[in-house]
Formats: sequence, structure tokens, C-alpha cells
Amino acid sequence: MDQELHFGFRLFSTDRAARQGEITTAHGIVRTPAFMPVGTQGALKGVHWQEVREAGADIVLANTYHLMLRPGAERIAELGGLHRFINWPHPILTDSGGFQVMSLADLRKVDESGVTFRSHLDGAVVELSPECAIEIQALLGSDIAMQLDECLALPADPAEVERAMRLSLRWAERCKRAFGSAPAGRALFGIVQGGDRRELRVESARALAGMEFDGYAIGGLAVGEPQDVMLATIEEVVPHLPAERPHYLMGVGTPDDILAAVARGIDMFDCVLPTRNGRHGLAFTRFGPINLKNARHANDARPLDADSRCPAARDYSRAYLHHLMKANEMLGAMLLSVVNLFYYQDLMQGIRAAIAAGNLVDFSGMIREAWARGDIAPL
Amino acid sequence: MDQELHFGFRLFSTDRAARQGEITTAHGIVRTPAFMPVGTQGALKGVHWQEVREAGADIVLANTYHLMLRPGAERIAELGGLHRFINWPHPILTDSGGFQVMSLADLRKVDESGVTFRSHLDGAVVELSPECAIEIQALLGSDIAMQLDECLALPADPAEVERAMRLSLRWAERCKRAFGSAPAGRALFGIVQGGDRRELRVESARALAGMEFDGYAIGGLAVGEPQDVMLATIEEVVPHLPAERPHYLMGVGTPDDILAAVARGIDMFDCVLPTRNGRHGLAFTRFGPINLKNARHANDARPLDADSRCPAARDYSRAYLHHLMKANEMLGAMLLSVVNLFYYQDLMQGIRAAIAAGNLVDFSGMIREAWARGDIAPL
Repeated sequence: MDQELHFGFRLFSTDRAARQGEITTAHGIVRTPAFMPVGTQGALKGVHWQEVREAGADIVLANTYHLMLRPGAERIAELGGLHRFINWPHPILTDSGGFQVMSLADLRKVDESGVTFRSHLDGAVVELSPECAIEIQALLGSDIAMQLDECLALPADPAEVERAMRLSLRWAERCKRAFGSAPAGRALFGIVQGGDRRELRVESARALAGMEFDGYAIGGLAVGEPQDVMLATIEEVVPHLPAERPHYLMGVGTPDDILAAVARGIDMFDCVLPTRNGRHGLAFTRFGPINLKNARHANDARPLDADSRCPAARDYSRAYLHHLMKANEMLGAMLLSVVNLFYYQDLMQGIRAAIAAGNLVDFSGMIREAWARGDIAPL
Repeated sequence: MDQELHFGFRLFSTDRAARQGEITTAHGIVRTPAFMPVGTQGALKGVHWQEVREAGADIVLANTYHLMLRPGAERIAELGGLHRFINWPHPILTDSGGFQVMSLADLRKVDESGVTFRSHLDGAVVELSPECAIEIQALLGSDIAMQLDECLALPADPAEVERAMRLSLRWAERCKRAFGSAPAGRALFGIVQGGDRRELRVESARALAGMEFDGYAIGGLAVGEPQDVMLATIEEVVPHLPAERPHYLMGVGTPDDILAAVARGIDMFDCVLPTRNGRHGLAFTRFGPINLKNARHANDARPLDADSRCPAARDYSRAYLHHLMKANEMLGAMLLSVVNLFYYQDLMQGIRAAIAAGNLVDFSGMIREAWARGDIAPL
């Protein structure tokens, strides 16, 4: 770890609203636009850490909610912090735990002080306040910490959306105060809330910008709403975020979501899709998604993509991958998860190069046309 | 694939009854004594093929029973054979399918012609004759094929043991005839049966030796009997096997079983223990087996073995491995399976070196003493 590196963000190129740059952290550089694979419990499902790196990931996301419950933030701190614990010496972003509390925990009670919930593991009652969320993330030692917020599923009652947004703003202030003058290289991001209500989103973005966070996330999207609602919200919010800070769209998304959001000024993404879909037999490829469970692959000797940078996409036939999925062999999930991680990182690399060259629109058009042409028919 | 390599076996050193040498096949060299990891359905559970190779495996075992039912031997042949299908260009041994028929299939009926059973996958009625077992293994293209035999669980009725042994001998002859003059580099092994009855084991070994197989396996052991019964049987059988051919103990075993069997003249082993135990949280180490699920590892920052050749044994703390097992993360099973594959292959390498140096007794003693001393206590 290089303690001399401080958190920072530099923009190298822009192409319309799209931006290409890099984030510096104490654990290294993050090229943006960046996709962060998700290691929920301190591991990506079915993937070795060196494969995550070989795929091209500069940064990964870990879930504070899961890690605080098991093995515990204090334990990870005693073991030298999360980077050492999981043996990933590169940048790590942790969420605040708020999102998983809302989606996984039972008996949650949200009030001004924070959220009280029962652990989904053992039913223990746990309290999570803004100050506590910051302390836990400090114990984990993540490079980028997130404020505690309240995230609602959409559609939601408008009054509820407003209440949750304002509560999240007050929690943002408390998180900022608790974070204080951060240790060298660590950063804290605020999270824009406000559901699908434009005026609330703008108010949230402006208020957070006034608090001078190190970066700004858009939360509460990709929670069930149509893509056009998500994109319209991004278009409303981004102009109100400080341009000199990274913009992070939480929990997104499909390759198409990423192309569309980058074009609207988003710099960072995280999503479980590469590994989750890989486990279920779905490969992301230049030819669009390919479902390896489909019987049409049973006799197909072709690799997924002979020109891929990913060994797993080149070295195994579709017939073998189909067999592994049908036989429920772990190796099928493992290979397809790696294929998908490479695909996502190669997509990000293509996006960065396209922005630098000023041709993101053409690049995105070509990518989408190739998806639309679909898989090449078997011989 | 080097078609000029023919199957062969050379002995380089002996140390009392122990032997060190190498098998040549069309797909490369197998150093003996050899441990063959098991890729039941054409994959090791939780392990990438390059990890199997990096661990030091020269040869793997694949199960004919599973592959004939799914994806089917004809399909694998159409796809270029098993080596290409699984992308393992090195030697492969296939069993005959008989053992799994006995242990997995329903409604099996054994008669002179062969065995009829219902697939455990879809209930389809399948017939497996000696000739059919040879044909299927030829379609798979394995380097070493096994005769069809009837394997009983022990203890078994003595008359049943004798009947099954004699039937297996008649099937051995039919397999030999069906195998004919094998394609260059392919080999067929006979299987000694006879349960725990010495005179039947000797009769079986002598009769098979008279048929001039390329190698000789001892089957029907490690099926529930005590270790001393297994070792006594090996001691009875080995002197009756041709010394100039490899001796293979099927389905064995623990590291201790392997040390004991090598000392009695066994050259080849296969077992699912490295991956099965790894999936269940058990690591084989120089300090004996370590159960990572045990709570005593929760705060242990030490790696499994800082001096191991295996990255997974060096790069992750016991605390992290414990966490992965408790959290049911695939990565825990993956890392411990690799640790165990390295351990087994390093044990075989140590055994080979010890035989060459003429000090297998001392080597085995040192290994067992280190196991007995156990794990080093946490600081």
C-alpha cells in the first residue's frame, strides 16, 4: 500500500456528456468509466481473485452489511483490514450496508438515529447509524466509503420518497462529520436519492454537492423501474453534480445500461450480473447474451468467442460449457463467470478508448448492432 | 498429441517392494507412483484444468458411467474425443463404468452378458456389456481403459465374492478380445477381484496375468473394509502381478493409505478425497488434516502453510478460509480443493524421490511424524 497516494479524480477526455479519466486511491489507480465486480461476502462467487485482476478490474465492491455480520468488521480490522483479509491489494469500495438492510434484513425500523434490524443470519438485533456505518467502513479500510442512506423500492408513495430523501440528506451530513478529515487516500461518497421525482432528485444532488463529498452516487435506481425512467433520472441529476468529482450509478447494470449511462456522464458502476448470470449459464459476448443451457449448444464445437482475450471463452467448446451447466458442475459457473467478468472489463476498456477518441456514439452503435446480429449460427 | 508414443512402462528404481518409474502414453508421460485426480463428469469439482496441471498431475481419471449417460460417448467422439472436449491434452484413464453401475444405478441386473441398469439421471434402461464398455472407452479416446468387472461391497457373502470374481475374469477375456490390437498408445488394464478371500485374489491375479494386460488394477477395495484388510490383500496380490507392468489400486485413498500401498508395490492411485474434502472444508497439509470449519481458525492470520508450493496455501489466512466455508462461498471449496490437489501431488513427488534415493521407509516415517505432531498452535 502506497500511503503517499491521496484520493483524487482526473478527467482526461470528454465526449458530449461522457467522461474518461482516473481515480487515484491509496491502493492504486481506477480507470474510469469503471465497472466494479461485487464480492458480497469478501469473495466473488466462483471466481479466484487473480482472475478478477486478469479480467482487468481495477476496483471491487464489498458489502458492509454482510461483512459486519460475518466475520465482523472488528475481526477484519484485527486481521489487517479487508485488503489483506481477501488478498486483493487493489482499490476497494464498500457500500454503507443500508441497501442490504432494506432488502435482506427482517424487522427493520428506520428512524432519525438510524436503522435497527435483525440479522438474516442469526436473528440478532443490530443497530446501524450513520456514524456506525462510517466506523465499520473505517475498520474494513475500504478506499471508498459510502454514506448511509435509505433506499426505497420503486414504485413508492411520493411522500415516502420525499421523507426518505430528506432523511438520507441528514444522514449524509452526519456521515460527512463522522468521516472527518479522512485518512490519506480514503474517500467518502454521498448518495443522491429521490426516487422517480425529478425535483427531489435535483434537490438531493444540490444539497449533497454543497457538502463537498469526494464523489457522488445515484442510488435508488435499478430497483425495478423501466430503463427509460432510470436514464431520465440520470439526465436530471448529473448536471447538478460537481463535474470534477466521480459519478457512480449504484447497482447497474446490463451492458446496455452501462453504455446508456456512460453517455449521460456516469463514471462508475457495480453489479452482480457477470457472476450471477454466469452461475445460471448465461454468457455475455460480443454477439449478445448466450444461454449455454440451451440444447442448441449440445453439439457445438465452437468456443464462445475465438477472438476473446479471455482463455475460458477461447479454450472450451460451447458443447462442453453446455454439458457442465446441465451436469451442474461448479466448473461451468466458474468458467462463465470469468467469461462475463472479462466481457464487462473489455466493454469498459472499449468505452474508455471511444471517449478518448471522441467516438462513443459510433462505438455504442457498433456494439449494439453486433448484439442485434446475434450469435453466429452453428455450422 | 504425439501419435508416435506407444504405451509403455519403465521402472527406474525400487526400494524394497516400492517402485518408481514412468508410464508413456500417446498423450504424454505419467510419473509413478502417480495420483490421478478424479473428473467424474469431465470436470474436477471446483477446480480449473490449469490448476490440476499446475498442482502436478500427469493424468486424470474420468468416469465412463457418467459420461456415457451425459453427454454421451458418441457425442464426445464427434466433438473430437474426451481430451479435446475437456481441454486436457494430457493422459486420461477411464474406468469401465461397472463400479458406478453398482453404486449409483437402480434396478441393476447382472448376468453373463453384462449388466442392465436404469440411468440415475432419467431412468432410461441401459445395457453395459464387456464389449460395450470397451467401445465406449474407445469413443472417449482414453489413454488407459479398464475392463468391465463386477465390484461387490464388503463384507459380502463368500459364494457371491467367488461368483463375481469368476464372472469378472470371463469379462476380462471378452474385454481383451474386444480391445484387440489397440490403437497406438492406448492400453487396457485388467482388474483383480476376490474381495477379502486370499485364494480368490491370487487366482484372479494369476489368471489376469496370463491374459497379458497392459497393466493390472486391484479393485473391490476401499469399499468399507478396515485398512489392514486392504493392505493384507495388496500384499497377497502384488507378488502375482507381472512386475514389468503398472499396478493400480482403484479408489484409494488417504495420504496414509497411499504411503502404505506404495510400500507394497502399488504404482497408481485415484480418489475423490482431495476435492470432496476440500469442498467440505478439510485441508490436507504437512501438519495433518485441518478442518477450516472449526471456530479456532476464525482469528488465525496464518496461512495454511507458508512454505507450500501452492499459492492458495500461502496467500490466504486460515481466518479467511474459515470465513469462506462458514459463508458457504464457492471460493472456499475452490481454494481448499486446489490446496489438496497440490498436497497430494507433492506427496507423490516426495514418494518418487524417496524411492529413487532408497529411503522410502524414512520418508514415510517423517511424513507420519509430522502429521502426528499436528497443526502448529496459533500465536
